[in-house]
Amino acid sequence: MSAQSADIYFYGFKHEVTLKLLTLLHASSVLYTRPLANLIEQLQRLPGVGAKTAQRLSLHILKRPTEEVEALANALIQAKQQVGSCTICGHLSAEPICEICAHPSRDNSVICVVADSRDLIALEKTREYRGKYHVLGGLISPMDGISPEQLNIQSLVRRVSGNKVAEVIMAIAPSVEGETTTLYVGGLLRPFTKVTRIAFGIPMGGDLEYADEVTLAKAIEGRRELDF
Amino acid sequence: MSAQSADIYFYGFKHEVTLKLLTLLHASSVLYTRPLANLIEQLQRLPGVGAKTAQRLSLHILKRPTEEVEALANALIQAKQQVGSCTICGHLSAEPICEICAHPSRDNSVICVVADSRDLIALEKTREYRGKYHVLGGLISPMDGISPEQLNIQSLVRRVSGNKVAEVIMAIAPSVEGETTTLYVGGLLRPFTKVTRIAFGIPMGGDLEYADEVTLAKAIEGRRELDF
Repeated sequence: MSAQSADIYFYGFKHEVTLKLLTLLHASSVLYTRPLANLIEQLQRLPGVGAKTAQRLSLHILKRPTEEVEALANALIQAKQQVGSCTICGHLSAEPICEICAHPSRDNSVICVVADSRDLIALEKTREYRGKYHVLGGLISPMDGISPEQLNIQSLVRRVSGNKVAEVIMAIAPSVEGETTTLYVGGLLRPFTKVTRIAFGIPMGGDLEYADEVTLAKAIEGRRELDF
Repeated sequence: MSAQSADIYFYGFKHEVTLKLLTLLHASSVLYTRPLANLIEQLQRLPGVGAKTAQRLSLHILKRPTEEVEALANALIQAKQQVGSCTICGHLSAEPICEICAHPSRDNSVICVVADSRDLIALEKTREYRGKYHVLGGLISPMDGISPEQLNIQSLVRRVSGNKVAEVIMAIAPSVEGETTTLYVGGLLRPFTKVTRIAFGIPMGGDLEYADEVTLAKAIEGRRELDF
């Protein structure tokens, strides 16, 4: 509770009483010295960081050498300043063209479409895919006011229609927005190339018993002939 | 793996081969553009932040407005620059004397001794205690090479012997190091004042059935007469 709001709350009390109450309120808010309180507040804006974690991180940071704290602060500012989007695929990149698009030995004829750089990174970690990517930057969502124009879709259509692309793989998770986006983008691209989508089914190590019905239905629908 | 270490590792290969191998290594390390990789690396140095959390936080940070990222970076540097120790009690403070020590209405005659500012903050949150504190800055631990001289103990003895202190409450958790510290500091202060310690026993809402034997023994040992 700030002194400001206390002022309003105690409006009408005698001045001396108000002052005393303010002192008491102040007494109960001296938990953190100001710069520390500010750091805790800033850290709490990060996802998954609550009051307790923010306090723990802050007290840890105060104990680290100055160089280490400065290195973190600089990393924050430099990442924000230097990282933009690849002009070809929309992936996070410090250069105008990202390292995947610029890579000489990756297959130009296959483009994998993802909602977000996060998904691209997850796919890259499998080391299975050697084609290129296209990052939409979100999903079509009329509920949240996100229309196709706000996404990186036009550049994808230009990219596919202007180059020899043998296949576009839609790699978008099957939510309502995901399905909408997959069908919309797929429809736009179908005149120019083959459009496929990743398989949905039982995850490896998963249990049929515990899989939800939609996943099971998708797994049956997506069945393939056994190859010996 | 950096190009540097790869260079050494492949020392002896033909130059062309080395170049090809470096290209392959490079291909598998383009997950993150450099400033992003650096931010992830810096965040991973924080306690409880692993590779996944660091990636999640970094991608979140890149999406935030520049002002917000700068506010966080500045909060880090300012907290580190401005927050030192209170010259009286050793608590974290941006001023030479912390807000608790400087507070006019807190009881000067009782000093609560804690290992760390973290413990002080936890006690302050109860709003039960209106005396002063003394932060030792750690526990005596011969195993870790921490001797009494490295802790904020001498200033405590001066503080207690030079002022009218009616009671010193030792509020240190009962580990081996905690007990050593409590007994050592308590012994030094006994000539000057009454020394007490916080109660150990069954936590509120705790179950006797699930309490360990040492806690149960402490709870019986610390029993008090019922007051009606």
